[in-house]
Amino acid sequence: MILTVTLNTALDITYRVPALRPHATHRVSEVTERPGGKGLNVARVLAALGHEVTVTGFTGGATGRVVQDQLTTTPGVVDALIPVSGPTRRTIAVVDEQTGDTTQLNEPGPTITSAEWSAFQTAYEDLLASASAVALCGSLPPGVPVGAYAALIRSAKAADVPVLLDTAGEALRRGVAARPDVIKPNADELAELTGSHEPLRATQDARRRGARTVVASLGAEGLLAVTPEGRWRATPPNHAHGNPTGAGDSAVAGLLSGLVERLPWPDRLARAAALSAASVVAPVAGEFDQGVYEELLGRVTVTGEASAA
Amino acid sequence: MILTVTLNTALDITYRVPALRPHATHRVSEVTERPGGKGLNVARVLAALGHEVTVTGFTGGATGRVVQDQLTTTPGVVDALIPVSGPTRRTIAVVDEQTGDTTQLNEPGPTITSAEWSAFQTAYEDLLASASAVALCGSLPPGVPVGAYAALIRSAKAADVPVLLDTAGEALRRGVAARPDVIKPNADELAELTGSHEPLRATQDARRRGARTVVASLGAEGLLAVTPEGRWRATPPNHAHGNPTGAGDSAVAGLLSGLVERLPWPDRLARAAALSAASVVAPVAGEFDQGVYEELLGRVTVTGEASAA
Repeated sequence: MILTVTLNTALDITYRVPALRPHATHRVSEVTERPGGKGLNVARVLAALGHEVTVTGFTGGATGRVVQDQLTTTPGVVDALIPVSGPTRRTIAVVDEQTGDTTQLNEPGPTITSAEWSAFQTAYEDLLASASAVALCGSLPPGVPVGAYAALIRSAKAADVPVLLDTAGEALRRGVAARPDVIKPNADELAELTGSHEPLRATQDARRRGARTVVASLGAEGLLAVTPEGRWRATPPNHAHGNPTGAGDSAVAGLLSGLVERLPWPDRLARAAALSAASVVAPVAGEFDQGVYEELLGRVTVTGEASAA
Repeated sequence: MILTVTLNTALDITYRVPALRPHATHRVSEVTERPGGKGLNVARVLAALGHEVTVTGFTGGATGRVVQDQLTTTPGVVDALIPVSGPTRRTIAVVDEQTGDTTQLNEPGPTITSAEWSAFQTAYEDLLASASAVALCGSLPPGVPVGAYAALIRSAKAADVPVLLDTAGEALRRGVAARPDVIKPNADELAELTGSHEPLRATQDARRRGARTVVASLGAEGLLAVTPEGRWRATPPNHAHGNPTGAGDSAVAGLLSGLVERLPWPDRLARAAALSAASVVAPVAGEFDQGVYEELLGRVTVTGEASAA
């Protein structure tokens, strides 16, 4: 199975309101709830691609129970979340029906005790024994040490399980130094890591910092991959309009599935770019339009070359 | 015991954010959760005044369980909420730390089935048998007939239990026609009911429509009561600054406690006005500052006169 780790799982709530006006009272016209956090979105896409996926991370409180209840109805996803005393955070996306714009309110998440963090590490090492690949996704909740991802990467490497890291800021910086197999930063995350706003230069710099492969997601410009086997750029045929939340998670799912299926890099990147574009036109993160995906897959342009052996 | 009815209970969530900007992403710096809905606020104040209170209405889903868990830790309040299949609504108050202003997002509430509404009516009639007074508070959730409060008022009158109605709009209009003992509209609700923005005229008109007593809550100007025994105005000594949410609920608690203690009208109104002002300076609805309340109680000005017998 493929393992995804979401240390700061969430109950993602979407409110539709006629128009958001600060300091006014709003009657919410529509409420939707779904499991959230990058690793859970990645898992849903992997399951839709036909892979067996196990999700781990933390869950707690009434919000955590709602997340777990909804996971039980997601075919192909096995719940191995670790219970903690604090409640799973909520994220609230307020969609203004007049403008279509979204205002986001993100709770910080529960404070994880050192005993809970230790319990997680033990469970994670047990899960690695049957994992073909692992993705470490998203922000760290309060209480988890900032070097957490570095420790989880070292465990994965010790267990000989390929590991992908998708996070930001200091957690990314510390994680990269532990030499993950793949990182998938977006342009902002890459610039923050390297100080360079020039994608190719920044990608090469991120490799020097320790990442074996860097796949930068550049929005409508697609993916830029620099790997030990060569460098490629994958560009979708046209600019997709819609909700970009979750596009990066779909790209991660494309990369991971391509890794365990041992697809050549150009095919992995075409899949990741097509999934990413197909998820932009889907209404919620962690979903994609299967028809759009299949249609786009043959139309992604991959340019680049393999390195000299 | 005193019975309070909250058909649209809520989990009231407060978020503090450094500054609310539409279409931006916000990290919430502080999250608080508490049982909400007007009748639950009234019950907490009554319990703090030393009365035995039973709360009924609807509860459902994960949010309803959080509401009920928190009620078990509220001394003096007995939980007689009726389970329904839909989840209890959330209300989100987003407090802007820069300006102190609050932006409110209110979910509509679960849709109540006709079987659930019937089950509630049966339970309510059972509870009336041991009630000394009943308060019907707040909005109606989807699915409950707009004449709901009229039906509940008729049941209370048949059981010889004094009934106070605190709601708005069509639910208030229909409720008033069933001749409740007391209504407690604010200035806006009274104007909507009667078409008049002149408080004394509107209050007299509301009595002609069926309410035996009308106690209008006029914000900083205090309370205006027109009753079969006379008319009075109760004015707190100075304008309280703070959070007006829940001030009306504290006034209801003052009126109900005064009713069951058979206080003369001037004393009831002084209590209601002092509680209302003391709750403005408390941080959350359903709480009041006991010291401020006691200090204010002797300083409320009550003017008016009893009717000729």
